[in-house]
Amino acid sequence: MFSFPSFSNYNVSMFEFEVMAEDGHARAGIFSTPHGKLITPVFAPVGTQATVKTVTPAQLKDLGTSLVLANTYHLYLRPGDELIAKLGGIHEFMQWHNPMLTDSGGYQVFSLSQTRKIDEDGVTFKSHIDGSTHRFTPERSIQIQENLGADIIMAFDECSDPYDTETIRNAMRHTHNWAEQSLKAHSRTDQALFGIIQGGVDLRLREQSAEFISALPFNGIAIGGLSVGETKMEMFKVLETIHPILPIQKPHYLMGVGTPEDLINGIAHGIDIFDCVLPTRLARHYSAFSRGGRKNMMNGMYAADKKPIDEQCDCYTCQTFSRAYIRHLIMAKETLASTLLSIHNINALVKLIEEIRDLILQGKFRENIPHLLEIWSHNSQRVNFN
Amino acid sequence: MFSFPSFSNYNVSMFEFEVMAEDGHARAGIFSTPHGKLITPVFAPVGTQATVKTVTPAQLKDLGTSLVLANTYHLYLRPGDELIAKLGGIHEFMQWHNPMLTDSGGYQVFSLSQTRKIDEDGVTFKSHIDGSTHRFTPERSIQIQENLGADIIMAFDECSDPYDTETIRNAMRHTHNWAEQSLKAHSRTDQALFGIIQGGVDLRLREQSAEFISALPFNGIAIGGLSVGETKMEMFKVLETIHPILPIQKPHYLMGVGTPEDLINGIAHGIDIFDCVLPTRLARHYSAFSRGGRKNMMNGMYAADKKPIDEQCDCYTCQTFSRAYIRHLIMAKETLASTLLSIHNINALVKLIEEIRDLILQGKFRENIPHLLEIWSHNSQRVNFN
Repeated sequence: MFSFPSFSNYNVSMFEFEVMAEDGHARAGIFSTPHGKLITPVFAPVGTQATVKTVTPAQLKDLGTSLVLANTYHLYLRPGDELIAKLGGIHEFMQWHNPMLTDSGGYQVFSLSQTRKIDEDGVTFKSHIDGSTHRFTPERSIQIQENLGADIIMAFDECSDPYDTETIRNAMRHTHNWAEQSLKAHSRTDQALFGIIQGGVDLRLREQSAEFISALPFNGIAIGGLSVGETKMEMFKVLETIHPILPIQKPHYLMGVGTPEDLINGIAHGIDIFDCVLPTRLARHYSAFSRGGRKNMMNGMYAADKKPIDEQCDCYTCQTFSRAYIRHLIMAKETLASTLLSIHNINALVKLIEEIRDLILQGKFRENIPHLLEIWSHNSQRVNFN
Repeated sequence: MFSFPSFSNYNVSMFEFEVMAEDGHARAGIFSTPHGKLITPVFAPVGTQATVKTVTPAQLKDLGTSLVLANTYHLYLRPGDELIAKLGGIHEFMQWHNPMLTDSGGYQVFSLSQTRKIDEDGVTFKSHIDGSTHRFTPERSIQIQENLGADIIMAFDECSDPYDTETIRNAMRHTHNWAEQSLKAHSRTDQALFGIIQGGVDLRLREQSAEFISALPFNGIAIGGLSVGETKMEMFKVLETIHPILPIQKPHYLMGVGTPEDLINGIAHGIDIFDCVLPTRLARHYSAFSRGGRKNMMNGMYAADKKPIDEQCDCYTCQTFSRAYIRHLIMAKETLASTLLSIHNINALVKLIEEIRDLILQGKFRENIPHLLEIWSHNSQRVNFN
């Protein structure tokens, strides 16, 4: 329908994933994309509506962000994927010229539990904006994602309740059929297509799903349906179980995860890519990651505190402002508080991952896991953000 | 009550105002302050609560802002001037290390028309935050402003209805008494104190007020009580009338004014300093200054428009983003829209003033006024922001 800009740098090494070093299951790699080499492990902040909320692309780049996720469901509804294609694609639209990833739209659509109807071929749903009726199928999701034009796009899948076996089985059947249909529908050679493993917290089903998805010619493998209400133990049990099945030559992407300790543990379980709304959503709730534990910056104890949020943090916020000032902005309902806290929280994850990558390259990650967890483990209250 | 940091650079040339060039009544000057030389004419964006809404100090600095105004009333109530003094003063608190100005608090207090009571010595009022009762007198206003620690502070004055002669006379009597009391109360030698002329749109009263205030040993002269509902013609008539009375060796500050065409005309009437919330408030209402006229960026005509807001603008927003993207952010209720529009609108005024200053230095400002007004004159709908 639209002519896409020709991709002059395309060559056989496109989407090559080179593992530079391993340390246990943890890997340090490079995933090549049309918008540059993605250094892994990597954390992607979420730009739901083609913007990482309250932060400019220049600020994101300054703090070392390399990958940004945008949501297909939201952009399909507003401003529309066809408009974004006409305007030159998602990178040009939001002026993020580094790698980008779009989800399939499935997760958001299935979250509309009151207003969507799933069948074997797809999902019919009502827009949260105006109530109008829409339908996603694997073909439609891929078509929309091709219009958006991210470097990494996702197969259409169904994320189910993690505990109900009947529901999980149905969702898995859909996910597997739709994975094959997504592969068939995909036509842009300048976009990597990742498949998604489902299976709830049922280890047997997870194994089956991992085997099925791993056997297909995807450019990467994602693990979906986690961080949706299950315990940390259950999540890592799933990662442990499927790890031997995952193809080592492809990047592994744990969807919707994000706390500092989840990144540490996820990388230890062989994960290369993470995304989460947590750093920006916590920021809008005035909560800050820090060495030693999550801080509620609205707390009166910070009212006259000259120190930065985290004394070891190198972000613009911590290098510039006091806790007292951040708290003042919060109390005065100034949105700059969200901006400064988003910069801080994204930076915390980006820099933690950089530190972990260095440790992997030195073969010192595994021995440092207890130390890293000691520093960062008080940043988890389980939060069902996605 | 507090010990202030010693000011090592203090010398006799402090607050010297050097006029480099004149072109008609317009001047290009340099006003020396403890936080650097203020190049005039200058436009100050307003940081009501110690933040220029939605914009970081780094972004403000990047676009060439040199002077920022903060509101005494707001900061006195929250977080409190004593706390700010303890934290090292307003510059340190908000991390703006260039010149700053605080108003006297009078304007905001008098705006609380339902909950304030004026007498000969000051004003008793209720906080808009919690309804608690407070009192401002000239002494109190100066004490608060000394705690805040801006480079330029203002005498306590009363801004009245611009048309009712009885009210204007009372306000002028208070303003003149309080001007002398403000001078007496002022103790910090590292802060310039400006007096304020009142008198509504009554040219006779304005003359009297200009004569009274100009005769006092202030470091600068401000014109208050304009841009409060009177016509443009009335405003410029006042400026014309008082101009011969204003001391030429002191900077002239027109308070609360702000549109591009008001800056052009104000400078032509001998004004050196302006402040206004307009660029940031318009931004929050999705309105953008531009050559050719003010643009409502929510307008559907921009939905697929690849051009920047203003094709001749050099701001980050225009150098980076399309009208289509800005409109998308607005429709999607993303606060980044306010940030990008604030950057654009402040930049428009800062760069316009830079251009005017260059013209004054070349002796070409007066001949270019019609040209400048042709470009910028469609940016005025009269708006009573302050």
